[in-house]
Amino acid sequence: MAAGTGIREERKLKTRQALLDAALKLLEGEQSFSSLSLREVTREAGVVPTAFYRHFRDMDELGLALVDESVRTLRQVTRAARQGTLPTEQIIRRSVETIVAYVQANRLHFQFLMRERAGGRSQVRSAIRSEVRLFISELATDLARFPGLREWSTEDLQMMAGTLVGVVINALQDVLELPPGRSAEELALVEMVSKQLRLVILGAGLWKSRPPEVSG
Amino acid sequence: MAAGTGIREERKLKTRQALLDAALKLLEGEQSFSSLSLREVTREAGVVPTAFYRHFRDMDELGLALVDESVRTLRQVTRAARQGTLPTEQIIRRSVETIVAYVQANRLHFQFLMRERAGGRSQVRSAIRSEVRLFISELATDLARFPGLREWSTEDLQMMAGTLVGVVINALQDVLELPPGRSAEELALVEMVSKQLRLVILGAGLWKSRPPEVSG
Repeated sequence: MAAGTGIREERKLKTRQALLDAALKLLEGEQSFSSLSLREVTREAGVVPTAFYRHFRDMDELGLALVDESVRTLRQVTRAARQGTLPTEQIIRRSVETIVAYVQANRLHFQFLMRERAGGRSQVRSAIRSEVRLFISELATDLARFPGLREWSTEDLQMMAGTLVGVVINALQDVLELPPGRSAEELALVEMVSKQLRLVILGAGLWKSRPPEVSG
Repeated sequence: MAAGTGIREERKLKTRQALLDAALKLLEGEQSFSSLSLREVTREAGVVPTAFYRHFRDMDELGLALVDESVRTLRQVTRAARQGTLPTEQIIRRSVETIVAYVQANRLHFQFLMRERAGGRSQVRSAIRSEVRLFISELATDLARFPGLREWSTEDLQMMAGTLVGVVINALQDVLELPPGRSAEELALVEMVSKQLRLVILGAGLWKSRPPEVSG
């Protein structure tokens, strides 16, 4: 009995995953998530349309599951990349390389995220924005431990973390357009993004967290 | 005869504009540009489908015209905002306010740009990416005139300009989600983006345009 439940549970998870994979595959071309129908997804996954509802309430819920799947391990790997006692330049470089590799290993997921970030379905868009905010908050928390930043206001730490995360997000579209394989373009991109992050971090060294009024 | 040609020309331009406006209007909801059909656009514009081809070869060409229409005056107004002899802080602030006002006055255009930047039709996506690159190049040229930046390599000026433009582009999605009217949220957003730009510009003061090798 228990074994039977286990097998049913496993099959159920398999079908769920097949639906998620089918949706991603269909989005590989020009189609946007908001124009994707439940029927197209079930057809691609090889299940009957009604089977969809055993896994997701509607397409929005499937979209949210895709967002979750896209970023599930990203926060862990990027936090790991910035731990340790390496000099700042190397932490930056390693973080950028880690993210680029992650995005390349999850191209379809990130194509989906980048499109839907500005896309049609508001629930999915909000979920992506929440993930970005969470990312920024975690980075702000880690930044607060650095010697020069301990005195900063929370607001300014968030502002700085937002700038750094923004630099990376802007580069993601370029990562997605890279030719396959570890190319010269990829190295140039890693170099460029690392420089941009360094520029922001240099600025932090001069920032007065409670800046004076604008002076003439 | 000449007057007749003039009237025909004017009518033709009117229909062309009606098609562009119709496409934008249809994109206001969840629909993406790649799922928009020529027939939907002509129906919305109130012309017969075949009339489309007197104005555009295909939907890609209409998309490119929309990109062009979106940014036609943006470069001018932002260059104007950074001219003059104001202190840097005020130039930053004025630039951000100018862009936010421009985007709010052209919401549908920018919603289109933000979605299609990562979107399905590759010609339109490339056109948007070219516009961003042009924007970065023009800013790099203007930056090269600042005292501390005259010695910088072209590559580093592009890198800095890319960081600044990236900060602004990242904020555009937030501008699009602002409630209508000049709200407290808008002021907070202008404040935040101005701070982020200032942080990058502070970093430039410490940047060595030909940085040494990574040191332990």
